[in-house]
Amino acid sequence: MIKIYGKNCVYEAIRAKAQMEVFIEDNQTKKDKNILSLLNDKGYKYEVLTKQKMDMKFGTSHQGYGAYREDYKIYDEGFIKSFKKDQGRVLILDGIQDPHNLGAILRSVDAFGFDMVILPKNRSVLVTEVAAHVSTGAIEYTKIVYVNSLNQAITILKENGFWICGTDAMGTIRSSEIDQSLSLAVIIGSEGFGMSKTLVKQSDYLITIPMVGHVNSLNASVSAGIVLHDLCLKK
Amino acid sequence: MIKIYGKNCVYEAIRAKAQMEVFIEDNQTKKDKNILSLLNDKGYKYEVLTKQKMDMKFGTSHQGYGAYREDYKIYDEGFIKSFKKDQGRVLILDGIQDPHNLGAILRSVDAFGFDMVILPKNRSVLVTEVAAHVSTGAIEYTKIVYVNSLNQAITILKENGFWICGTDAMGTIRSSEIDQSLSLAVIIGSEGFGMSKTLVKQSDYLITIPMVGHVNSLNASVSAGIVLHDLCLKK
Repeated sequence: MIKIYGKNCVYEAIRAKAQMEVFIEDNQTKKDKNILSLLNDKGYKYEVLTKQKMDMKFGTSHQGYGAYREDYKIYDEGFIKSFKKDQGRVLILDGIQDPHNLGAILRSVDAFGFDMVILPKNRSVLVTEVAAHVSTGAIEYTKIVYVNSLNQAITILKENGFWICGTDAMGTIRSSEIDQSLSLAVIIGSEGFGMSKTLVKQSDYLITIPMVGHVNSLNASVSAGIVLHDLCLKK
Repeated sequence: MIKIYGKNCVYEAIRAKAQMEVFIEDNQTKKDKNILSLLNDKGYKYEVLTKQKMDMKFGTSHQGYGAYREDYKIYDEGFIKSFKKDQGRVLILDGIQDPHNLGAILRSVDAFGFDMVILPKNRSVLVTEVAAHVSTGAIEYTKIVYVNSLNQAITILKENGFWICGTDAMGTIRSSEIDQSLSLAVIIGSEGFGMSKTLVKQSDYLITIPMVGHVNSLNASVSAGIVLHDLCLKK
């Protein structure tokens, strides 16, 4: 079970037909007159609670909406093996630590039509309540895969016909210059250290984002957003 | 006085010749052998402290570096009046609430060569310790302006020859299609509500970011990053 909270998170979980028990703040049932009939129509079990009780269950960022949701479905290496190159685009996160960044990245993944996100089981944030909340429900639409070895996952993707696009300050190509007709798997490095050298070696392309400032580093979710935006199909 | 913390923040403040008193964790002076001689060379007053004392002063995200820095210089409407159209690009933040978003945006502002950030004094996050930290020092290189009225600030910018680019889901142009030779001021709306209607009306262009997903909204710092990247000069 995972606690989800926030209006968008709960609404998207309803749209995605997730199994859950829903909690709505009493004040919210006056402002959002549809929510209880929607929950009745969809057959959800729910409780109406005071703000104080909602805060106790979900902290203070729930906006009047919370749920005990069944765990998100997490896939494993077998899913990557079965994922054919015409089934969509892949994002690989090499050691992202901050659940806010993961949540913001999941919004971009959904918005720009990527289909699978691969995370390593070690040295990485996994899907937490905060990440789910910050994703504002976008997490419902992404296949999340946990793997023991990103290196091995990339080898499988290559066997399946994917072109691997690393991102690195030393990169040689801009994301807007990549051939859009290719099947692509993009790697984003960690907040502090970027991509590991092993994965740089595995990359067919090394994407760079040109910068003109003094500090010249971007927030990891901003870098991911820029690259995913440029590689978005059906624009 | 503002507390700053984190390796990049303190190093960038030194580069920017900010007045401050610096605190370094004892362990860090072994790993970073240059820091004390740099502080001596630049004439900074400093203390070497235990991790426990650093944590007490700066919380737990200091990475061994902290400082009591003079307040960042904040500009006012007069500065906008004096800012000519060939002096750079402008970002206007219409009600951003989250200091993490502001910090991430300031990194993009520096990286993509924007020169001024305008924030309203009310209904907006201002420059906090968290925002400064998340900016990883990028805040040192940006002119920050607080104004009473964004509407008035935009009127001044227009009089000075700037073209106003709002951003909105209902927009009609992509940022990559804007004429790069124009003097541009970009508006990014708040996390929950986007841009205010008054500012939409003031906009010469209304930029949209096409999306193909289910939830179709981006984190505010990601939206800002994508637009600023597309409008970056000298690419």
